[in-house]
Amino acid sequence: MPATLVKKSRKSARTSAPKAKPKKGASARRASKKPAKRAGKMVYYFGKTKTEGRAELKALLGGKGANLADMTSIGLPVPPGFTITTDTCAAYYESGKRLPRGLMDEVVKNVRTLERELGKKFGSTKNPLLVSVRSGAAVSMPGMMDTVLNLGLTDDAVEGLAAATGNKRFAYDAYRRLINMFGDVVMGVDHEHFEQAFNEVKSKYGAAADTDVPAEGLVELCHAYKGVYRHHVGSDFPQNPLKQLELAVEAVFKSWNADRAISYRRLANITGLNGTAVNVQAMVYGNMGDDSGTGVAFTRNPSTGENKFYGEFLVNAQGEDVVAGIRTPTTVDEMPRWNKKVYEQLLKIKTKLEKHYREMQDIEFTIEKGKLYMLQTRTGKRTGFAAVTIACNMIKERLIDEKKALLRIPANDLTQLLLPSFDPAAKKNADVLAVGLPASPGAAVGKPAFTAAEAVERGRTGESVILVRRETSPEDVEGMHSAAGILTSTGGMTSHAAVVARGWGKCCVAGAGAISIDERGGTFTVQGRTFTRHDTISIDGTSGEVIAGAVPRVEPKLSGDFATIMKLSDKYRRLSIRTNADTPGDAKRAREFGAVGIGLCRTEHMFFEGDRIMAMREMILAETREYREAALEKLLPFQRADFVGIFTAMDGLPVTIRLIDPPLHEFLPQDEKSQLEVARRINVPVEKVRERVKQLHEMNPMLGHRGCRLCLTYPEILEMQVRAIVEAAIECHRAGVKAMPEIMHPLVGTRKELAILRRHTEEVIARTKKEQGFTAKLEIAIGTMIEVPRAALTAAEIAKEADFFSFGTNDLTQLTFGYSRDDSASFLPHYVHSEILEIDPFQSLDQVGVGQLVSLATVKGRETKKGLKVGICGEHGGDPKSVWFCHNAGLDYVSCSPFRVPIARLAAAQAALR
Amino acid sequence: MPATLVKKSRKSARTSAPKAKPKKGASARRASKKPAKRAGKMVYYFGKTKTEGRAELKALLGGKGANLADMTSIGLPVPPGFTITTDTCAAYYESGKRLPRGLMDEVVKNVRTLERELGKKFGSTKNPLLVSVRSGAAVSMPGMMDTVLNLGLTDDAVEGLAAATGNKRFAYDAYRRLINMFGDVVMGVDHEHFEQAFNEVKSKYGAAADTDVPAEGLVELCHAYKGVYRHHVGSDFPQNPLKQLELAVEAVFKSWNADRAISYRRLANITGLNGTAVNVQAMVYGNMGDDSGTGVAFTRNPSTGENKFYGEFLVNAQGEDVVAGIRTPTTVDEMPRWNKKVYEQLLKIKTKLEKHYREMQDIEFTIEKGKLYMLQTRTGKRTGFAAVTIACNMIKERLIDEKKALLRIPANDLTQLLLPSFDPAAKKNADVLAVGLPASPGAAVGKPAFTAAEAVERGRTGESVILVRRETSPEDVEGMHSAAGILTSTGGMTSHAAVVARGWGKCCVAGAGAISIDERGGTFTVQGRTFTRHDTISIDGTSGEVIAGAVPRVEPKLSGDFATIMKLSDKYRRLSIRTNADTPGDAKRAREFGAVGIGLCRTEHMFFEGDRIMAMREMILAETREYREAALEKLLPFQRADFVGIFTAMDGLPVTIRLIDPPLHEFLPQDEKSQLEVARRINVPVEKVRERVKQLHEMNPMLGHRGCRLCLTYPEILEMQVRAIVEAAIECHRAGVKAMPEIMHPLVGTRKELAILRRHTEEVIARTKKEQGFTAKLEIAIGTMIEVPRAALTAAEIAKEADFFSFGTNDLTQLTFGYSRDDSASFLPHYVHSEILEIDPFQSLDQVGVGQLVSLATVKGRETKKGLKVGICGEHGGDPKSVWFCHNAGLDYVSCSPFRVPIARLAAAQAALR
Repeated sequence: MPATLVKKSRKSARTSAPKAKPKKGASARRASKKPAKRAGKMVYYFGKTKTEGRAELKALLGGKGANLADMTSIGLPVPPGFTITTDTCAAYYESGKRLPRGLMDEVVKNVRTLERELGKKFGSTKNPLLVSVRSGAAVSMPGMMDTVLNLGLTDDAVEGLAAATGNKRFAYDAYRRLINMFGDVVMGVDHEHFEQAFNEVKSKYGAAADTDVPAEGLVELCHAYKGVYRHHVGSDFPQNPLKQLELAVEAVFKSWNADRAISYRRLANITGLNGTAVNVQAMVYGNMGDDSGTGVAFTRNPSTGENKFYGEFLVNAQGEDVVAGIRTPTTVDEMPRWNKKVYEQLLKIKTKLEKHYREMQDIEFTIEKGKLYMLQTRTGKRTGFAAVTIACNMIKERLIDEKKALLRIPANDLTQLLLPSFDPAAKKNADVLAVGLPASPGAAVGKPAFTAAEAVERGRTGESVILVRRETSPEDVEGMHSAAGILTSTGGMTSHAAVVARGWGKCCVAGAGAISIDERGGTFTVQGRTFTRHDTISIDGTSGEVIAGAVPRVEPKLSGDFATIMKLSDKYRRLSIRTNADTPGDAKRAREFGAVGIGLCRTEHMFFEGDRIMAMREMILAETREYREAALEKLLPFQRADFVGIFTAMDGLPVTIRLIDPPLHEFLPQDEKSQLEVARRINVPVEKVRERVKQLHEMNPMLGHRGCRLCLTYPEILEMQVRAIVEAAIECHRAGVKAMPEIMHPLVGTRKELAILRRHTEEVIARTKKEQGFTAKLEIAIGTMIEVPRAALTAAEIAKEADFFSFGTNDLTQLTFGYSRDDSASFLPHYVHSEILEIDPFQSLDQVGVGQLVSLATVKGRETKKGLKVGICGEHGGDPKSVWFCHNAGLDYVSCSPFRVPIARLAAAQAALR
Repeated sequence: MPATLVKKSRKSARTSAPKAKPKKGASARRASKKPAKRAGKMVYYFGKTKTEGRAELKALLGGKGANLADMTSIGLPVPPGFTITTDTCAAYYESGKRLPRGLMDEVVKNVRTLERELGKKFGSTKNPLLVSVRSGAAVSMPGMMDTVLNLGLTDDAVEGLAAATGNKRFAYDAYRRLINMFGDVVMGVDHEHFEQAFNEVKSKYGAAADTDVPAEGLVELCHAYKGVYRHHVGSDFPQNPLKQLELAVEAVFKSWNADRAISYRRLANITGLNGTAVNVQAMVYGNMGDDSGTGVAFTRNPSTGENKFYGEFLVNAQGEDVVAGIRTPTTVDEMPRWNKKVYEQLLKIKTKLEKHYREMQDIEFTIEKGKLYMLQTRTGKRTGFAAVTIACNMIKERLIDEKKALLRIPANDLTQLLLPSFDPAAKKNADVLAVGLPASPGAAVGKPAFTAAEAVERGRTGESVILVRRETSPEDVEGMHSAAGILTSTGGMTSHAAVVARGWGKCCVAGAGAISIDERGGTFTVQGRTFTRHDTISIDGTSGEVIAGAVPRVEPKLSGDFATIMKLSDKYRRLSIRTNADTPGDAKRAREFGAVGIGLCRTEHMFFEGDRIMAMREMILAETREYREAALEKLLPFQRADFVGIFTAMDGLPVTIRLIDPPLHEFLPQDEKSQLEVARRINVPVEKVRERVKQLHEMNPMLGHRGCRLCLTYPEILEMQVRAIVEAAIECHRAGVKAMPEIMHPLVGTRKELAILRRHTEEVIARTKKEQGFTAKLEIAIGTMIEVPRAALTAAEIAKEADFFSFGTNDLTQLTFGYSRDDSASFLPHYVHSEILEIDPFQSLDQVGVGQLVSLATVKGRETKKGLKVGICGEHGGDPKSVWFCHNAGLDYVSCSPFRVPIARLAAAQAALR
């Protein structure tokens, strides 16, 4: 046989090996694969005898199991045990919720090893082995079954434990805890049934606290608990430790699909996991006396990021006592006074763990009769502040490099650094009235205003008002701007209120359905309580809470570390970050946040303020081009002044101005009273106003007469707007300010549209320059939004007329999916909840569908015009995942609301580093 | 040098040859190319001396020019002349409306050749050459400059003509015609100014008719005309024949972009042409006495298709006299009595021309002093009836083969064969009140009904009513069905009224804006006249006319020739033709028209009739799934019965049933009164109805909670519908009828949606079969509409869950363009008018954009699932161009409204033959 053939057959033999071991680094991605029919090796041991797992097997062993194995390997004092794999959980579900065949055999084998290692025996009447059983998925996840402790105790074994510890009270205390926990979390017996029995025993013995009950009382209690168990479960508390173990393992598997776990995964957007692992570990006791204890700690301060050991412990207690908050724990700072040796050992472990994981750790530990045991370590959760500080400190400490540091910070969490927030301490006792959607982060305190006009009026006097509306519309913008915060009773995360508020970084709680608003009466009612414009309320845009009274706030501090992270981000990112801003104020703020241009300056908001709306209405009501032009003439100075302000704020940076976009009817009043007012103000019969409103009414305004369709049918609007831009630019130039306008035509769907608009725009630019006698250089790029699917599909053609593309991913998403943002609340939450959609496509760009159009248009556009500038200016521009996509799609920039600029800068760097 | 290199360089030399001659067969397609900077050879001569043009050069010489050359070549008696090319016209426009350099030199050269051939001379005082100048594009096109006759006459030459003909009156008559025509069509002097001068001369000489004016009068008239010319033009009538010619040529070029010509091209959807040619031809005279004459004729009857020479002529007249209708012409049947020789010569020419062109011809001829001249031949326009008959006859006569015959019939013209129409004779004197959009062909006569209920009620008594509404909504369907025709004052070609009417083949005139409707008063007003429910009106769905009184109608005859064409179509087409039908009646009719299945059976129309709407409303108002199910239970028997009816009508043919599609609010009443009625009928407080209506209101219902989103959020609707389908199929099977249902889920955008729906559908099918104890074979395909861009983009994924795809091109067009059909009237007409869009994309599929998605999804879907059945069920299924596209895209079938099935069959054959 020739050598090559031998080689080949060997190779294929290897490839088809049945037990493909998980490869190093496969990590989380591996979890998305379905397990083989039978999960191969189902149990991994860790202990002195052997340690089969390791940190890289997180997907298979869960975070907890992998880290227990890991800690064991690096010599930390970990009680031995074993982990049942996540694949086994998947197999459990695949075979219709039945434990895979062979599993319990493997479990028993590992129990035997454990027994040998510890010299104890399951169910022994002399020295029984007791274990804890815990769930543990690859990603930390509350909502699943937490813990069963002391498993292995039976009527016999409890006596053995009493004998071995010489502490009958301790033994029966452990037993009653087991029956209670097992009954509760494994068998679903309501905790209160046990509680009741405990109270009876306590009163019998006149005991105030649990610890006051004597041993005999606990013996009685165990008896009573078994009765409760029998009554509610319908069978006796199992006296076979292996049976206990089997039931507990299955309960952990079941808890993977408990409602709370599912909803947590949905909210945290965790997908692609196999299931949970089960960790079975020898018990150690923090409640064996005053030389014992238990605690949880962070290797650094998770709130501030300070590099200081941070945690709490309880003397003579079991782990759940710390978590449950029954007794008040002591901070670890005080530990040296209790046991200096253990404290120093903990500090050494802290350093060892951080060196090993190069990450801040969240640990659990127990001290049994003076001996320290590590029960868990995992990456510690932290605030945005802490994330930034820790990243910066760890660079300084040379624990990690700049790139790793940047990748560590969840970009979205930077929001916390930018907005004031309610004092967490004060919020603990808050009088929460309702919880709506956390539509726009922030913490606002004020008194309700029930109309936009009211908000403006009261805002003028310096009063802090919360605009409370069923929903908001473009007519409300001024009132929204005047308000300290916005609260709506309907509408979702992408409702008008939410989008506008986020754009401004203004606090907004949307869709607080529990609130019933009586606009005329000037009240809102919730939980049977009525609030008027004289009652102060607080709204938390980060949590969605609506709170009675004024909750104290803390202002953000943009620390030096924040600046460091921004600087580093700029060092590594390829994408430019622009901002969506319509006012000089927004533009200025965004520039401070690091925006290098405006990617979307909407012009229609400018038409709503004060007198402008009247001129706008006059224009719309005009019957001839001449009258329209006369009305537009009145708007021109306003627009020009607006642009002068924005150009000045962005001196030397490009400003992409989108010409008028919304349908004209949005500018007309819909109610009788306002129609009368308009008719009077601009001196036309009210019938005419009414008729025009009716005439302009559209079944589907999103798909109607808007965008560039307006300037194509009313070219005089384009003329006014372009003139205002050019005149403003010239005025700026003369004042020594470098204006760099780019004119963007929205909603283009065919090349011809843009060709006509481009020609017309160029004409007006040339004419205006001539009129102004301006001969200096003033280059104005002309481009288009790509927001209609057809524009993306025909990008090669459209690029012939465009100097730049800017993806309007809001509308592109609406059209690609056929979803109206305004109406999607009726089905979109259900879609996300039932995982029809992995994520709300208005929050994070749908890469498969909408993204396909973005990529296609980018490629096709650049095939036509090499170096075509391409950006994105939808809401997605500030979403880290979407920024990552834009980086990969080769875009030149993303544009987002001012407050998201820092997030986008970091996300862009992360995209480049990934 | 090696041989290969030599070859190569030769080849490239040839490729870059500057004067690329137009290739044979390039024909119309060639015209879309821009001409070279200078148009090369600009003038083509035809005559005894030489003939440079030929039929194939139509794109370059125009239809008229090419055919004149062609007729000359085959020996027909054609006055000689020359043609200036269409490229020259294009060059004229490209150089900013200036005649290309060198053109007049070429023209002069050809004039000299003409002079030599005829022995005449331009401007001669003895025997002057006179010419006609005519426009002539590649496609026949009214609206351009028609003709200048007698060009070449001057104050001198007119004397020469008098001398040469010995007829002073004739000469001055020719001169006054020239001054008039030249002034009018070349220089733009209003004809009425000449008319006035003529009247003065006539009254001076007491002449009743033009012919009564003596020679002296005409001399005076020429003088007066020159005065009119000078007054209005500002210069003297040109006395240089070449100057006259130059001006006339330029006028022809200018007329190419006259408003009328542009709008004709738009209406006839003529694109891609270069410009017009100019034909300069020696004059012959039909007005030189009673042995002279002129006429126009068709080689066959253009109305009926009968193979009989058909036409009219006038003795002693010039061509325009026939066209202008000043004198009543004689039919050619009477020609033998006037001049048998000429008549027989014409019959021979008819045969020769038909043999040559193998097509029915439309000819112009002139007899000058007994000698016959052919002035023009072109393909004759004909009615749909004639097209079918001529095609069939020509096959029999072996003039053309089957394939050519099929390709000859404009598929859309078959409509004329399927619908009754107004008697053209009677329509001539009709009292036309208004002209709306020809929304759905047909001819309806009846008395106005102003509400749907009224239409139903009066329809029941057998009265023929025309439903007259501002616009219609789904609640009106019953009334629409009862009416003989539908007339709306707003709404476009794709408004609700138009779409529903076309679906039924019911006559509809939409958007007749001149009509003002007073629904309460029961009247409509137009042109100051008021019509009540007692006045009879006629509406013509083919022309859009609204006519007072009853216009007589003629019924269609589906001739044997029609059947022949259908049979031939089926022989050559590859696409299957299905129909869109919701009722057994429609299904039956479509089957008679040749549909081989139903491609779209909408189920929601079934919910509007009678009691059903109440059950439907009950379902929508129900607050729990249980109540909803109870209400749906009431609908089930109705649905089942509907399906039994349709399955029976389509026995043995597939029926694709689309589950519920419209948003629920369409089923609820919007006005107070109806809401009260509903509340009473289904016994709930009216507030609840009102609240639910409010709650269901959507900003953009097109993008809202509809389509499969309904069955995903209310799975019980799916259960009822699928159960009804399966029960109906089983009932049919038991009755010996073969039901072949296919279940189609609308508006799918993600694979997951369809996966869930498919699983649920399969469950209900299995459950229902089991309940029914049905064990025989009943295969039900499950598929989806592709109507959301994202579905097309992710077709590879979606195909995994689909047995078939059906493109819903209506919605796909709406979403791809971002156009709402309901609202597009505000800009779409402008878009079509100004050629931003070549054609209304709701009428004919946008192949570049929407078609790209159709092609992509077809390819991707079949990559996933080989042999995936793919069809189209939008309105486009009945549009010939779209059918062609679907053929090329590899679709399996198109589905269209019953009345368009024959059109689609023919169009599919044409697509296969092209």
